[in-house]
Amino acid sequence: MDRIDSVRGLQARADAERAAGRRIALVPTMGALHAGHVSLVKAARQRADRVWLSIFVNPTQFDDPRDLAVYPRTLEADLVACRDAGVDVLFTPTAAEMYPEGSDTIVEVDALSRPLCGASRPGHFRGVTTVVAKLLAAAKPHVAVFGEKDFQQLAVIRRMARDLLLDVEIVGAPIVREPDGLALSSRNRNLDPEARRQAVCLVRALDAVEVAVAGGERRAESLLDLARREIARAPRARIDYADLRHPVTLAPAPERLDGPALLALGVFLGPAREGEGAPVRLIDNRLLHAQPGGGRSS
Amino acid sequence: MDRIDSVRGLQARADAERAAGRRIALVPTMGALHAGHVSLVKAARQRADRVWLSIFVNPTQFDDPRDLAVYPRTLEADLVACRDAGVDVLFTPTAAEMYPEGSDTIVEVDALSRPLCGASRPGHFRGVTTVVAKLLAAAKPHVAVFGEKDFQQLAVIRRMARDLLLDVEIVGAPIVREPDGLALSSRNRNLDPEARRQAVCLVRALDAVEVAVAGGERRAESLLDLARREIARAPRARIDYADLRHPVTLAPAPERLDGPALLALGVFLGPAREGEGAPVRLIDNRLLHAQPGGGRSS
Repeated sequence: MDRIDSVRGLQARADAERAAGRRIALVPTMGALHAGHVSLVKAARQRADRVWLSIFVNPTQFDDPRDLAVYPRTLEADLVACRDAGVDVLFTPTAAEMYPEGSDTIVEVDALSRPLCGASRPGHFRGVTTVVAKLLAAAKPHVAVFGEKDFQQLAVIRRMARDLLLDVEIVGAPIVREPDGLALSSRNRNLDPEARRQAVCLVRALDAVEVAVAGGERRAESLLDLARREIARAPRARIDYADLRHPVTLAPAPERLDGPALLALGVFLGPAREGEGAPVRLIDNRLLHAQPGGGRSS
Repeated sequence: MDRIDSVRGLQARADAERAAGRRIALVPTMGALHAGHVSLVKAARQRADRVWLSIFVNPTQFDDPRDLAVYPRTLEADLVACRDAGVDVLFTPTAAEMYPEGSDTIVEVDALSRPLCGASRPGHFRGVTTVVAKLLAAAKPHVAVFGEKDFQQLAVIRRMARDLLLDVEIVGAPIVREPDGLALSSRNRNLDPEARRQAVCLVRALDAVEVAVAGGERRAESLLDLARREIARAPRARIDYADLRHPVTLAPAPERLDGPALLALGVFLGPAREGEGAPVRLIDNRLLHAQPGGGRSS
């Protein structure tokens, strides 16, 4: 595995790989790698001859400087994980490399960036789209792979790539979960043991709603109530949002679901006592196959 | 000369040229080609094996729909001009090709887009940077050539390309002028004969200021007064802006010039009588070599 720190170095490598007819897949990450990232590397490997992974904790996508400060950084372990996963090139730029002095350019997707995580994290997706545009310019990949846990991020990046006519395929890879169902996330490391136990409230809410949809429930408000009740069973959980949305446009779902709908959850897991450390924000989602009709309540 | 209308077609051609080791230079235009554009093609030819020229009247950079409506369109003549100039590929996309349905992504350079033309044309440079980002993604050129008449546009695009880590060299080519000094512009076609005669007020103002600087004048306000007086000699001229700026950052020049400074002019040439057609907006600029010291007024 080669490690490259400079944009020019990575671009030269990309040109060489492309000239040799090889396909490049990029897996952009913020490090603190876990089995979810390894699954992205596997998805990348299926689609390309070379798998490149970037580690860059992007300051511009953190709306809260405390969140940036506590974001886990585990570079030594990440290097091992990348080697074990068969990453060909690891790109580890500095902030100065990604944001040259006097940087003043943003890339922004408007409507898709507003709801859900965008509502509670102003500027977050502008930071994401700006840095992903840069990473794509630096690596010139044929394919870029992102996890479906960050569903809105994936939707926003897809739209950006399409709108800016970027010649890259954006691929989403399925959520990887712990044995108890918690979606893998670098932020899980910041949960204390009790918060970690209670964090299953998100996936329990998703499961409960999925079961209700399978049983014929189509009323959006009833489904969201069900999700909120499941989350409320965890005393340390505070809901940021629980929402049903169109899976591509992220427009609000109709009062009665009549097709695929995204159930998206954002939940804070608080510390044992108020003031004892920052709450940890977790997100999770599920695509519901809510064909028109249903049953129970029609 | 090949003419290509689709983004995918152009990208495939770019990949083929690059795989063959050939350098591509792109000349983005809005058509209505004149000798200024031909000079850009020549500059492009010096820097690449293939010269590509795009013609796209970009709706998002027109702050005024009337201005978009009257912008000259001369495709048949443009085709001839491109062939004569030795253009290898002409890219003529539709608006739907450049802005896929539901487009919602913008690229924006903040501070550089605010003064001068940006102050009187809100959203103009956002439209420029967004469409140029798309054209660069579509053509994947090694070099892109822009005219120095649109000096602020060139500065904004340079900054965008640098900030977004785009692997492309942005080249500025010198202003081409009519025998009487008027800078070539597609908008000149919209001047009636009398407005055309009076339009030399811009270059006369630039010349007068340059002479004053050579004579030792360094006071910014005195130089701007001189420019304004020259323009005022044209009865149909109305100044949009007359400004001295740092040539890279576009920050306001100091009260006494102490290095290179950009004199930038934006002037409306009005119709013979109020209401008889829209005024035509012309811009021009000159880089002043105003080393510290000077003489006259120190």
